[in-house]
Amino acid sequence: MTIGVKASHLTVVPQALAVAGAVMVLVWCIHFRGGLAWESSNKSLIFNIHPVLMLIGFIILGGEAIMSYKALPLKKEVKKVIHLVLHTIALILGIIGIYTAFKYHNESSITNLYSLHSWLGIGIIVLYGIQWIYGFLVFYYPGGSTGLKSESHPWHVLLGLFVYSLAVGNAALGLLEKLTFLESSGLAKNDAEAYLVNFTAIVTILYGAFVIFTVFSRPAQDDSSYKAI
Amino acid sequence: MTIGVKASHLTVVPQALAVAGAVMVLVWCIHFRGGLAWESSNKSLIFNIHPVLMLIGFIILGGEAIMSYKALPLKKEVKKVIHLVLHTIALILGIIGIYTAFKYHNESSITNLYSLHSWLGIGIIVLYGIQWIYGFLVFYYPGGSTGLKSESHPWHVLLGLFVYSLAVGNAALGLLEKLTFLESSGLAKNDAEAYLVNFTAIVTILYGAFVIFTVFSRPAQDDSSYKAI
Repeated sequence: MTIGVKASHLTVVPQALAVAGAVMVLVWCIHFRGGLAWESSNKSLIFNIHPVLMLIGFIILGGEAIMSYKALPLKKEVKKVIHLVLHTIALILGIIGIYTAFKYHNESSITNLYSLHSWLGIGIIVLYGIQWIYGFLVFYYPGGSTGLKSESHPWHVLLGLFVYSLAVGNAALGLLEKLTFLESSGLAKNDAEAYLVNFTAIVTILYGAFVIFTVFSRPAQDDSSYKAI
Repeated sequence: MTIGVKASHLTVVPQALAVAGAVMVLVWCIHFRGGLAWESSNKSLIFNIHPVLMLIGFIILGGEAIMSYKALPLKKEVKKVIHLVLHTIALILGIIGIYTAFKYHNESSITNLYSLHSWLGIGIIVLYGIQWIYGFLVFYYPGGSTGLKSESHPWHVLLGLFVYSLAVGNAALGLLEKLTFLESSGLAKNDAEAYLVNFTAIVTILYGAFVIFTVFSRPAQDDSSYKAI
């Protein structure tokens, strides 16, 4: 199933959304929430690393990894390496981002893992890791048989998009959760910060939607090795 | 892109999840939250209609509508009518469900439309309505040309899945939002009700995922009119 739009044209939109989302989460965490710190007596500054790494590192770089395989006008072998490297960086930054949430909880004596956001987050990073390992072994090194590769390919794409959609949804869930906490501690519902957080979630969801559309668009070039999905 | 599982086999899982989700939201709203009422001095009972209609009416029936077109072992013309009728009911129940949230807010003097959940909800129901109108006109009555139909088909599927994914994500967002409000008003984070609400969200997300998988699975029968997607 392919929609009649060229991937290389379509990606202009998600790239603009990625820049907007990255700027928004940085403005929120640095300007409104006081900045980022790995060690600080103000524990909130440790927490602030979490949304920044999860959005810019995990969601945006993970989305770039997905789009790169379809949209870049390069040879399949080169795109495969770019796809793998970007997913590797996204996974590592995602793990560090999750670690900062635990670090903040532990240093502030807040219970870990009570919320839906945290449960889904753990599930998503584990699935992302499994998907990475399976993809590496079958498609990169040592590489499966041609039969196994072509059998696995649609599953790799669909499960990858499933995990990615969950990640995008969970980012929106996390932004809303934090905003609700801030509003219970006195932030006005029509405060500029409340709008910024909600719009960051909307930009994130739109970015995720365009990443997924890219997968179903026409590839960047007529590549004989390209298999229509 | 088709995965090697028959739709009619795959749908066993989402049907079980649909029953579980429907029971869970009813137990939550009736047993834990005091019941459902269209008119009551206890305004919370009016609110309780909202999650019940949105989950059972909009998400579950909408999902059944999506799956019916792929999984039922019937002729294309029959499946099309079932697909249309189920989506129509889902859309109507979704609109009534959204209306009850406004009714509850108005009768309890709570501001409307300040949250991400509400903004996304309005956007989703409008997109769902547009998708319904376009689908009705092009695929049902008066029906577009064969060229328009085959050109529109992948867009109809992908935009439909996009709107449906947003609806599922927004249901999880709504459940989390309500739970956070309840927890700010004293509900313990490890209370049975908190677990019930979180697990309802997880069941909803899994149901949505299996609905989407069904679209990419093998159709129920070898139907000559079936177009692989």
